[in-house]
Amino acid sequence: MSRVLDGGAAAAAFPLGGIGTGNVSVGARGELRDWELANAPDKGASLPFTFFAIRVAADNREAVTRVLEGKLRPPHEGDQGYDAGRLAGLPRLAGSAMRGEYPLLRVELGDPVLGVEVALSAFTPFVPLDADASGLPGAVLRYTVKNTSDEAADVTVVGSMANPVGIVRRNVFNFPEFEGHPRNEWVDDGLLRGIRFGTDLDEGDLRFGSAALSTTDADVTAKPQWLSGFWQDGVQVFWDDLRADGRLDVEDVESLDPPPHPDWFTRLRVGSLGIVARLEPGAERDFEFLLTWHFPNRARAWQGNIGLDNAGAGDVVRNHYATRFADAWAVARHLAAELPELEGATRAFHRALHGGTLPTEVVDAAAANLAALRSTTCFRLEGGVFAAWEGSFDHAGSCEGTCTHVWNYAQSMAFLFPELERSARTTEFLHETREDGRMNFRANSVFGNAAWDFHPAVDGQLGAVVRLYREWRFGGGDEWLARLFPGAKRALDFAFTEWDADGDGVLDSKQHNTYDIEFFGPNSLANSMFVAALHAGARMAAHLGEDAVADRYRAAATHCAERMDALLYNGEYYEQRIDDVNEHRYQYGRGCLSDQLLGQQLAHIVGLGHVLPADHVRSAIGAVSRYNFREDLSEHHSVQRTYALGDEAGLLLCTWPHGGRPRIPFVYCDEVWTGIEYQVATHLIYEGLAEEGLRIVRAVRERHDGRRRSPWNEAECGNHYARSLASWGPVLALSGVDYDAPSATLTVRPRLDATVMRSVFTTGRGWGEVEVGPGGAALALHGGSLDLARLVVEHPSLGRLEATGVSLRAGDAFPLTAPAPTTPPEEK
Amino acid sequence: MSRVLDGGAAAAAFPLGGIGTGNVSVGARGELRDWELANAPDKGASLPFTFFAIRVAADNREAVTRVLEGKLRPPHEGDQGYDAGRLAGLPRLAGSAMRGEYPLLRVELGDPVLGVEVALSAFTPFVPLDADASGLPGAVLRYTVKNTSDEAADVTVVGSMANPVGIVRRNVFNFPEFEGHPRNEWVDDGLLRGIRFGTDLDEGDLRFGSAALSTTDADVTAKPQWLSGFWQDGVQVFWDDLRADGRLDVEDVESLDPPPHPDWFTRLRVGSLGIVARLEPGAERDFEFLLTWHFPNRARAWQGNIGLDNAGAGDVVRNHYATRFADAWAVARHLAAELPELEGATRAFHRALHGGTLPTEVVDAAAANLAALRSTTCFRLEGGVFAAWEGSFDHAGSCEGTCTHVWNYAQSMAFLFPELERSARTTEFLHETREDGRMNFRANSVFGNAAWDFHPAVDGQLGAVVRLYREWRFGGGDEWLARLFPGAKRALDFAFTEWDADGDGVLDSKQHNTYDIEFFGPNSLANSMFVAALHAGARMAAHLGEDAVADRYRAAATHCAERMDALLYNGEYYEQRIDDVNEHRYQYGRGCLSDQLLGQQLAHIVGLGHVLPADHVRSAIGAVSRYNFREDLSEHHSVQRTYALGDEAGLLLCTWPHGGRPRIPFVYCDEVWTGIEYQVATHLIYEGLAEEGLRIVRAVRERHDGRRRSPWNEAECGNHYARSLASWGPVLALSGVDYDAPSATLTVRPRLDATVMRSVFTTGRGWGEVEVGPGGAALALHGGSLDLARLVVEHPSLGRLEATGVSLRAGDAFPLTAPAPTTPPEEK
Repeated sequence: MSRVLDGGAAAAAFPLGGIGTGNVSVGARGELRDWELANAPDKGASLPFTFFAIRVAADNREAVTRVLEGKLRPPHEGDQGYDAGRLAGLPRLAGSAMRGEYPLLRVELGDPVLGVEVALSAFTPFVPLDADASGLPGAVLRYTVKNTSDEAADVTVVGSMANPVGIVRRNVFNFPEFEGHPRNEWVDDGLLRGIRFGTDLDEGDLRFGSAALSTTDADVTAKPQWLSGFWQDGVQVFWDDLRADGRLDVEDVESLDPPPHPDWFTRLRVGSLGIVARLEPGAERDFEFLLTWHFPNRARAWQGNIGLDNAGAGDVVRNHYATRFADAWAVARHLAAELPELEGATRAFHRALHGGTLPTEVVDAAAANLAALRSTTCFRLEGGVFAAWEGSFDHAGSCEGTCTHVWNYAQSMAFLFPELERSARTTEFLHETREDGRMNFRANSVFGNAAWDFHPAVDGQLGAVVRLYREWRFGGGDEWLARLFPGAKRALDFAFTEWDADGDGVLDSKQHNTYDIEFFGPNSLANSMFVAALHAGARMAAHLGEDAVADRYRAAATHCAERMDALLYNGEYYEQRIDDVNEHRYQYGRGCLSDQLLGQQLAHIVGLGHVLPADHVRSAIGAVSRYNFREDLSEHHSVQRTYALGDEAGLLLCTWPHGGRPRIPFVYCDEVWTGIEYQVATHLIYEGLAEEGLRIVRAVRERHDGRRRSPWNEAECGNHYARSLASWGPVLALSGVDYDAPSATLTVRPRLDATVMRSVFTTGRGWGEVEVGPGGAALALHGGSLDLARLVVEHPSLGRLEATGVSLRAGDAFPLTAPAPTTPPEEK
Repeated sequence: MSRVLDGGAAAAAFPLGGIGTGNVSVGARGELRDWELANAPDKGASLPFTFFAIRVAADNREAVTRVLEGKLRPPHEGDQGYDAGRLAGLPRLAGSAMRGEYPLLRVELGDPVLGVEVALSAFTPFVPLDADASGLPGAVLRYTVKNTSDEAADVTVVGSMANPVGIVRRNVFNFPEFEGHPRNEWVDDGLLRGIRFGTDLDEGDLRFGSAALSTTDADVTAKPQWLSGFWQDGVQVFWDDLRADGRLDVEDVESLDPPPHPDWFTRLRVGSLGIVARLEPGAERDFEFLLTWHFPNRARAWQGNIGLDNAGAGDVVRNHYATRFADAWAVARHLAAELPELEGATRAFHRALHGGTLPTEVVDAAAANLAALRSTTCFRLEGGVFAAWEGSFDHAGSCEGTCTHVWNYAQSMAFLFPELERSARTTEFLHETREDGRMNFRANSVFGNAAWDFHPAVDGQLGAVVRLYREWRFGGGDEWLARLFPGAKRALDFAFTEWDADGDGVLDSKQHNTYDIEFFGPNSLANSMFVAALHAGARMAAHLGEDAVADRYRAAATHCAERMDALLYNGEYYEQRIDDVNEHRYQYGRGCLSDQLLGQQLAHIVGLGHVLPADHVRSAIGAVSRYNFREDLSEHHSVQRTYALGDEAGLLLCTWPHGGRPRIPFVYCDEVWTGIEYQVATHLIYEGLAEEGLRIVRAVRERHDGRRRSPWNEAECGNHYARSLASWGPVLALSGVDYDAPSATLTVRPRLDATVMRSVFTTGRGWGEVEVGPGGAALALHGGSLDLARLVVEHPSLGRLEATGVSLRAGDAFPLTAPAPTTPPEEK
């Protein structure tokens, strides 16, 4: 998506950082914002005096020094104006233009006064199928400067940064206060030089950590530690020093305030690293910085708002990344040493995703929400265990426990980092499924704390079975499946006893679900998921040789599908069957529920095909689109949370086109959730209603245009909400790529109404680009390996092509040419 | 100022509330925002489900129900979208237009769909010279509805409000959590009916209090308490109830969630009060609500960021208003009963101020900043003691103790509520001036806590002497003066011993001041104030019969003025005399300091005239305007706090037009403070440089245009910063009104370059309007009484007119006609 945002796009924040590492974001003016490095969300958190600046001294002209950001835009309010740390009183640049195509960001920064053009390129390596390579706590910040004047110029680009280690709070002046004493240290190890930001805290302290601002560039100038003091002597001296000659002096004292300093004396320690170069007219040069961090320790407990047992909160557990790197400097060394390879893979993925032929809104949605995977919502503990919140409140995680019914919708991680989804399934089926089959839908075992005691969630629990099938089918392996399948059987069998009160094979009792309430009576959210789970269970059972189990599940699936269809299909869509819709609060009755076929959607994605009557399914998902999608919400009356409003478009969770709305319907019914919008869009595409699906995707992304909301943050109950990872669904559905590891088959059946389909594709061990067009098909493998027994391509212009025994390694391409035309020449 | 703000003016917040009562504000969309009722600032604080709505049911048309607010504008970000309490998903109105002329607000709310026009008028009574009448914890919210359709319509206007008593924090969903149990109660006492919001907290509890939403209207409908519960049943039922027929039902249960409720169960209690009426085509009707509150108890300590002794923090002390009213309902009864008189006086003041001929920017500045007087910055304790912060951080007071050097600049309170300034002087000279004459420049005696031990502040301490003179001269009375003068003498004599190290009569040692640092050596900020204070002291001493003291002060003043002029005047402006400007940090040396003649400005305001050589003073203040005012700050380099930036204009605190900037100058030198802008503007007007002065005032107000910053909040170190009350200075200077109570003389010497000058005026006991023009002059007294020995009017078109023995009561007018023209008829 090539949307360009100017400095007025105040909501835009492009997050840097890897999986499970926390983030710092770049705003539309090119500024660093939202410092969330230390294992917790902290939207809006600033680091004082942390910014990049440029000094340009062209021969025969007065030197110009500017903050490397677009100018500040109104509103300019603040209880002390802009606090001193913001440096709002320094001159900035006239214009900025941000283009974020996740995982790559580019911000052009311009001002005629400079005599040079500057562009910031920023990214954190992103390599499909490699969670470690995609999990580096750091980023590359590369300022490319081109001398557009007719005079040679001496250029300094300098990054300044406050030591972020040990921050416990911010005072009324918005200055951080610290536990321990931050320490700045100059390091030059031959490969890298720069500032290591450390602390005197103990290594086991929750707030222990480090950060580094470094460069491989040899031509540096630095002030590793500004003067500190009661007042802001440091910044005045720094700025004057920079302006004077573009070279920084090392301070010979820590502070001009005479010691001894009282305990409350500021511990803020700022340092600056500059790169200097002379640019001839027309010359261009990169000024490249590495920003890395390392906050190894988390509290060994969720400490979330749901209130799971937090017994381990006094202990710490390390982040996975902390087991790979000793500190932030080690991260920087790794990043510098591996940069060509890491950047190459990142750019290849970027090209494969953004350079294909899928509609821009689909690519935009899929790419932008990958940021959620690398936000504070997700993390990895030592040992590699994956865990996640539902989302991130501004200053705390939202709703703990890798919630099964929210992660039910997510597809991006399954198809890009399948090992992480496997970790979640392992937790669910080995540690959170009780003997009786009830699954704790929020996992507390990841911290070793006591299991959560609450209703089971029908959609989450059954969805987990389908997702186990998805992960196994994508390459999880038989050994892994065999370990988890006993738990999956218990979880599936639990449905019969817990949720089918009358034993008719259709779930109908009190059913807790993703709307945080309980449905009563037969409904197709639960039952479509039950049918899908039964089919998935049957396939896994059959593969493991448990034929009786497979037969039983298959029969139950067929029976449930038939009976559910008979009970719930109203000739147009699937309803909830309940005698008095107001007997219990929070039901939907005759409503048209957007999620009514969530199980069928999931069945499509995992290759189960239609598990309900195809004509009814098509009609029902069409009704969802017709009734629940609104081009304009100005006349919509919702007293619930609000994610779309006014003249915005969006898909409502439920409507009552034929009346029957309960007095108090379920508590989110009038809301618009991007995760559900994506799952419905995906389903529409699978059913051949691509235009209806794309309309929904466009609506979501138009709501996230940088002015209304950030393009890289789709919120629900929290920022970077996990359900938004449903946004990979339309890529799967449109590209029609389906990988079945057990049979080593890759199938490509594009559902895109275009002559040529070119898209990224992933399998369990390899990823690349696929192109299908009139002349044939081609695979290009960019990473990993691909060993196929069978490759099948179907496309209207091609018919069906097939190849067997395809084996590719990264860098290989494989063409599958269409047979020579058999059309007689005279018809041409 | 007739600036009209549309709904995009997101920074605009018009505060309602009286002196020392806290506030709730109205935003540009007509919404209630920034709930700060409970004795502390809390910018941004929302009350869930608190809003007004309208239902219009025209005959033969479908009823329309809308939130009575302009539509929400981007950005729409939020970590859970808009939280449920915001009700962002309900339809709002297409347009809004806010016109705030403090103390009156009008917001026009329009949408063709309604078929009626709606305008909100809102105010809290403001009566000059009557701090009690201007100190009511409440506001009138009057919705005027006009039926512009051709059909009669049934109209309901309904206000909903969450019980605000006992809020201790907000949870991650932005719902308040309470100490105690809020209780809603329906009350109809014959005069008023509505909802009283109470609590079961003890009367002595810090969070104890009440609020009320009431009306004198007889045609009401109400739901005093919504359903409460774990989910938001209450709002769904309320909104459906309202939409159904415009009449509200009383709920017969508290909650649909079966009891018993756990302790963490929501304590949120929302209630709605509606007024219903049938409007014929063309008919107009007011729907008038009173919103009142009563939070009697404050902690008996500042608990501020400076860290004065807080020994009494465990006790409570009542607000002054709590000694007048038993609870919020009593406030409402008083407001309802006295409304005609209170509103009449408020509107008369509004007309006198906004309807005169002073330049709109001057009126706008003077009026808008009166909000600071009635903000959380200021309060009154039981017994009537006035105390104030310097300003209000978003969520706490900023810099405690009615700081002498900040309040040095304030004029609005002295000339509108002189009893409050007298209270501050009483505190300063009876309780905060030590035996040796050193004044604690932050008062802790107001709470009975231990005195603050810090440097004395040269400008604040000497300014307090001048302000004692101001208060006495404005009508403080001889008895009061006699009590305080001994302290004033000690304070003044202290200057000779403390700050005049070499005994040459010019202050020159370590001088702490309003820039929070110490100046060393002679400077004209301190010495101009010293000269003014000595003259003021001499006059007071002479009046009290202490002739020797008077002679001594007068001689010292003359000597100091001469020597200071010789030492500091550089031929253009006054400098700081210091051998090595870098020997101490934070000096200004050869700089042009905006405050260099603060003492002279104050001398003008209090009627002392020039206390320094007039030609040098004119040159110097002209230099301040010339060097320090910047039409555009895009090229300004400041590393300090930022109150003006980019293409905005503003007056810098100091510049170095001829070089000599210290390496580390004083810590705010590159900032722009509205309080100093106003004092310099005032001074320029006094010196005959009105255009230069108005240019500065315009710059301030253009920076506060509702989009950049709120028009009713000029921040410095905190919102509603006390220094902004210097904004009354230009009114005094331009109108040229000077009242001298000891001689019972009112002088009017307009400095406005216009044929007619019409303005508000105040004296110690009476206030009204004065008009001076070619035909003569006229006084109209709107409040209090005025007994003058002498009335003097001077104007270019009139020459000098004089009257003696003028005695007026409220409602009286007094014409002073110019003598019949003596020009021979043939010249006409």
